Amino acid sequence: MKAVRFHGANDLRYEDIPVPKVGKGQVKVRPAWVGICGSGQIVKSHIVAHLLTSGTDLHEYMGGPNLCPTTPHPITGETVPLTFGHEFSGTIEEVGEEVNDYKPGDRVAIQPIIYDGTCGACLDGLHNCCWSNGFVGLSAGWGGGLAEHIVIPTTTLYRLPDNVPLEIGALIEPLAVGWHAVKISPFKKGDAVLILGGGPIGISVILALKAKGADKIIVSELSQRRQEFAKRFGADHVINPLKEDVVKRCRELCDGQGVHVVYDCAGVQAGLDAAVHATRPRGTIVNIAIWEKACSIVPNDLTFKERKYMGVATYAVGDFQEVIDAISSGSMKPDEMITQRIKLTEVEEKGFKTLINDKDNQVKILVEVGGGR
Amino acid sequence: MKAVRFHGANDLRYEDIPVPKVGKGQVKVRPAWVGICGSGQIVKSHIVAHLLTSGTDLHEYMGGPNLCPTTPHPITGETVPLTFGHEFSGTIEEVGEEVNDYKPGDRVAIQPIIYDGTCGACLDGLHNCCWSNGFVGLSAGWGGGLAEHIVIPTTTLYRLPDNVPLEIGALIEPLAVGWHAVKISPFKKGDAVLILGGGPIGISVILALKAKGADKIIVSELSQRRQEFAKRFGADHVINPLKEDVVKRCRELCDGQGVHVVYDCAGVQAGLDAAVHATRPRGTIVNIAIWEKACSIVPNDLTFKERKYMGVATYAVGDFQEVIDAISSGSMKPDEMITQRIKLTEVEEKGFKTLINDKDNQVKILVEVGGGR
Ligand SMILES: [Zn+2]
Ligand SMILES: [Zn+2]
Repeated sequence: MKAVRFHGANDLRYEDIPVPKVGKGQVKVRPAWVGICGSGQIVKSHIVAHLLTSGTDLHEYMGGPNLCPTTPHPITGETVPLTFGHEFSGTIEEVGEEVNDYKPGDRVAIQPIIYDGTCGACLDGLHNCCWSNGFVGLSAGWGGGLAEHIVIPTTTLYRLPDNVPLEIGALIEPLAVGWHAVKISPFKKGDAVLILGGGPIGISVILALKAKGADKIIVSELSQRRQEFAKRFGADHVINPLKEDVVKRCRELCDGQGVHVVYDCAGVQAGLDAAVHATRPRGTIVNIAIWEKACSIVPNDLTFKERKYMGVATYAVGDFQEVIDAISSGSMKPDEMITQRIKLTEVEEKGFKTLINDKDNQVKILVEVGGGR
Repeated sequence: MKAVRFHGANDLRYEDIPVPKVGKGQVKVRPAWVGICGSGQIVKSHIVAHLLTSGTDLHEYMGGPNLCPTTPHPITGETVPLTFGHEFSGTIEEVGEEVNDYKPGDRVAIQPIIYDGTCGACLDGLHNCCWSNGFVGLSAGWGGGLAEHIVIPTTTLYRLPDNVPLEIGALIEPLAVGWHAVKISPFKKGDAVLILGGGPIGISVILALKAKGADKIIVSELSQRRQEFAKRFGADHVINPLKEDVVKRCRELCDGQGVHVVYDCAGVQAGLDAAVHATRPRGTIVNIAIWEKACSIVPNDLTFKERKYMGVATYAVGDFQEVIDAISSGSMKPDEMITQRIKLTEVEEKGFKTLINDKDNQVKILVEVGGGR
């Protein structure tokens, strides 16, 4: 079968590999649509894990990524080459022994976290914080969405309702990142929020906030194109941080005190500095961004106003289903996130390279594998 | 009357000043016992505010403090010289017009926060985060505990039950700092905690935790004398961070994952670095310490394990009364915090200088003004 596999620095290959065989508790899925993730949380986390060990910089990486394990992953035992694609939907083709709740033809979205299930975090129900986690189609193995077939355990599957097309099914994963961040943050209806960065993660935060009734969403974003996207998806105010004083504007817009919650989807020092002072007493700064290095914080700025700084990671129990329900019920409308559709043969040229050279004009590029509704 | 007033750098004077006159809604109190605060949160915050403007360092300051306002405080309009003493109890001597709920002879503890009551934080009930707050006996005026009399509004008063002596009344303020930190942190009974620093604030955190049923309290502290104090007040484990690996020990003591909550009462980078990794997934680091400068945090270390970093400031509505109730009911026993008693004439020599030169042997030095039970 055809697959797009990552072999190492600068080496992404469209090639033939054997069709995987379905085992007990597993299903064989034909991927339908696969999102390419240029700035997603889990991709960046693996880039950074790599940077921290290798010392190369992000731009160098962009030219020559090496984010898959070269030593066997503790859970799957796999190493490069690995099939890419962790944001995807598909149709079940075949079910293994002891699989009773799925049948060929079922339409599903895949939650790609691989966790050991036995560490303290897993036992606490925090699979996203598993001490040895990994991701399907990225860092751990089990194949990926960018192939004609994949065999995965049923525990990764979320059934799509009839009114949620397969294309939208490929958006569940990035949407779950924003959903999770909003869900475990202290945001409540009526709160004012600031989002740093209007890229795909910032947009997934906007969509989650709108679904939860937010009506004062401020987005700080340099790119005019991304400001337009932010507004289209529901931002009430956009600020260009190079032209306006973010702290002053947020205080003016929020009874002199600032916002209740900040979502940092950018991960740069100047943004964080502003975020702290744009946050009202007892407010919270939620970090979703993956940083390339340490940040600087003045603890007194948190302390004197009892502010919080918290990190959120990917998604946990409940998030995938809640995103699917929100889309199915119409409270979340992510359709316009899809800015381009390409073929499996075009992943490198029209996918990755477009995200590097033209990222401001793209939210989500989908790769058609099996395609369909 | 006699008072200990702060005039400026290196200039603390025991001197005669006029007896203040009681006005509407105010009472005249004869201070009984006054704690000297060498490392308290509100004192350090004003030292730091000073350092940030003046650029001198803390040790220089120790020789020549200048923490009172030299421009009029926005609420009280007062400047140096100001009477010192913000941790104190006393007996009401006289009540002003429209004071119906207090009478001469009533024994009280004083909550020294001065707030405007009109800013956004105050309107949200967060007087401790007031945008222009100050402290009685420290930075804002209204006199202080280190004088034979003080006139203050009844809103600062907390009545002491019969079984809470005036000496203990002088401990309510520092105890309220620890109480507040524990209360607004996510600590719940059964959680394991790490406390960085075994000074007076660390001890007030231990006492609050014990009152709330904590049974796994780990304290990291360099000084052997302070380690002993920590144990006496209820620490279950003490660690010398120069001799032992704090992260490793905390994980060993807490099912391989680390503590649920860290209380940072030290405010040093190495301590914070360890604290982050000693905290389990979804755990929280609570900063009570006043830092002299910015700290460095690796956001990814918070993010991948969904850890939080939060600041807490002094005390808010409810804390003083809850501390008094906890002492009165016997669930908090702070008596042994008093390590020395001195006279009003001895404040500089036996008070401040002892805290500078012999701090490891002291928890709380009390100044006897009116004295009594
Ligand atoms: Zn695990
Ligand atoms: Zn105020």
